[in-house]
Amino acid sequence: MFSIFDSDMMLRAIDLAKRGIFTTAPNPNVGCVITQDDDIVGDGFHFRAGEPHAEVHALRSAGEKAKGATAYVTLEPCSHHGRTPPCADALIAAGVSRVVCAMVDPNPKVAGRGVQRMRDAGIQVDVGLMQMQAEALNAGFIKMMKTGLPYVQLKLAASLDGRTALSNGKSQWITGPEARADVQVFRAQSGAVLSTSQTVLDDNPSLNVRWAQLPKGIQADYDVGSLRQPVRVILDTHGKVKPDAHLFTLEGEIIILTASTDVSYPHENVDVICVPKDEHGLDLNVALRALAAKGINHLWVEAGATLAGSLLNAGLVDELILYQAPKLIGQDGRALANFGGLTAMDQVPSFELKHVCQIGNDVRLRMKKQ
Amino acid sequence: MFSIFDSDMMLRAIDLAKRGIFTTAPNPNVGCVITQDDDIVGDGFHFRAGEPHAEVHALRSAGEKAKGATAYVTLEPCSHHGRTPPCADALIAAGVSRVVCAMVDPNPKVAGRGVQRMRDAGIQVDVGLMQMQAEALNAGFIKMMKTGLPYVQLKLAASLDGRTALSNGKSQWITGPEARADVQVFRAQSGAVLSTSQTVLDDNPSLNVRWAQLPKGIQADYDVGSLRQPVRVILDTHGKVKPDAHLFTLEGEIIILTASTDVSYPHENVDVICVPKDEHGLDLNVALRALAAKGINHLWVEAGATLAGSLLNAGLVDELILYQAPKLIGQDGRALANFGGLTAMDQVPSFELKHVCQIGNDVRLRMKKQ
Repeated sequence: MFSIFDSDMMLRAIDLAKRGIFTTAPNPNVGCVITQDDDIVGDGFHFRAGEPHAEVHALRSAGEKAKGATAYVTLEPCSHHGRTPPCADALIAAGVSRVVCAMVDPNPKVAGRGVQRMRDAGIQVDVGLMQMQAEALNAGFIKMMKTGLPYVQLKLAASLDGRTALSNGKSQWITGPEARADVQVFRAQSGAVLSTSQTVLDDNPSLNVRWAQLPKGIQADYDVGSLRQPVRVILDTHGKVKPDAHLFTLEGEIIILTASTDVSYPHENVDVICVPKDEHGLDLNVALRALAAKGINHLWVEAGATLAGSLLNAGLVDELILYQAPKLIGQDGRALANFGGLTAMDQVPSFELKHVCQIGNDVRLRMKKQ
Repeated sequence: MFSIFDSDMMLRAIDLAKRGIFTTAPNPNVGCVITQDDDIVGDGFHFRAGEPHAEVHALRSAGEKAKGATAYVTLEPCSHHGRTPPCADALIAAGVSRVVCAMVDPNPKVAGRGVQRMRDAGIQVDVGLMQMQAEALNAGFIKMMKTGLPYVQLKLAASLDGRTALSNGKSQWITGPEARADVQVFRAQSGAVLSTSQTVLDDNPSLNVRWAQLPKGIQADYDVGSLRQPVRVILDTHGKVKPDAHLFTLEGEIIILTASTDVSYPHENVDVICVPKDEHGLDLNVALRALAAKGINHLWVEAGATLAGSLLNAGLVDELILYQAPKLIGQDGRALANFGGLTAMDQVPSFELKHVCQIGNDVRLRMKKQ
């Protein structure tokens, strides 16, 4: 069904889609390439929610040459009216004769409708080329569409012996500046950065993206004017965060998740969501669903051992990102997650190791839930 | 002083030297290349203690073409009569006109004598090309010559959170079969494998090298007939190891380090060395010096948290090799080293990360003492 030329063009569409990784949230990353015979006559990618979809950019650049052409799209073209008109209709109107999609829309209510609409109009539609690579572009979008929960990346930083601080609490800095800059890249790709009131009280962090701290190579492709700030989400069960916390002084949306009914913040960018408690604290399943309902489908979690342990216990972590410093803090050091009580090795949460690399003098491990 | 051609030839000599890594102990790994103008006329490497040195192999293969040639050697040619005659004399006798050495002999009593002897005979001798790479070939030999202590590699295996077992002691297997096969490669390169009576009593291990478990690529270069078994060393402070332990049934030398005067083993391959105690247990400095005196200059340590902690506390670990499984055992799991009580971050032992890679579904980190 697919030729080597098809694969080359889809790979190009995937590369184009990646150019939106810092900006499209909550929309998916999508790339599109249009060809006539062996020539590329148009291409494009989705850059920012509310702006044109990848297919529209590609059709515009192709112009009249779209007639009788093949369009390669990393995701099934939409069939509904959102903030922009349906792309399936645009491809039909342009007279495209074949559409190759890497994957269908993961939303079960939509999946296949765009394909059907184009087939009904006489277009040859082939689906499934480089599906895995296309899925990797949109882990959050796919997770939310399929489950109603955001894709959760839990970031941890520890010593070789899995400690985050000495027994007396001293810790700064365990990992080096390169690892901390790398964290900025992950924050910048997320829909929201989640932390806790305890972290806010202890460290008074900003939890935003500092463009100046992004690696030079990323700065070159992603100018400071395009900077999108992820939503900052604070889990504040008992309403302990003070209105003078540093994060309130910075631009960008903030969501407070709390079980307290006696919370108010004199800041117009703060959204307070009440979440019920379960036996362990705030009901994390409800909290994450509430975030997904707000359009947050990709959550980057930076917090302490308590939240890390709760998320792990609840099985809510999709990906673990561990920065490890080549140091030994000692067996009396603080553990990286409040988590334990296992009695057999088959209860031990195991991850699939996806990637490991050196960052400065530290190591970064990326692992997916098995 | 050195040309690109010189560098190419030294690199080749270093590659040749590496072909002895499984067999030369306690001798150093040495390679030699002999050139006339731009042609290689001879080469060789040291294969096994008692057999000819690298220079002799290279001179033999060069024959008459050694006259007026340049010899590239990864280590200063010896100037003393050991089990073989001095290589400096052999190079002089062959009529070589230039010798390039990567490094001088690290033994302070010898350093430079081979060079001087050749210079006195009218040979141009240039020293220091690719010294770092040459030093990396012989970490154990250099450490022992300079300090009288062996080079100590401490192997640890743990979960992401630095645990080796559940609180109830259950652990097998934390890491996968690929990581365990990798351990065989390190054992095979060491002069001795060190473990403790506790490990012998708990696991009844063989602590030997199983050729069949070495990676295929290594088997191809290192046939089963060449297999050299590292000495197995057991730290048995109180003389607890029983004569029927599995390790006594296998071929190869065994050394027992003990503070007990009431120890005897009815095995002819067992050497018992008495070592005094200090406030923590067996005096590890004395123990390691005793091993060095027996010709063990490269020690691979596989033991539990007690010995790991003692070696770390005593600052005796040159290299840490950590195999990490992408699992979380929990904060009540057993720590990887009995080590702690630090009160400030500047007391935390830090290592320089030299290499990190994925092995099966595990990660291996190699770190050097900073």
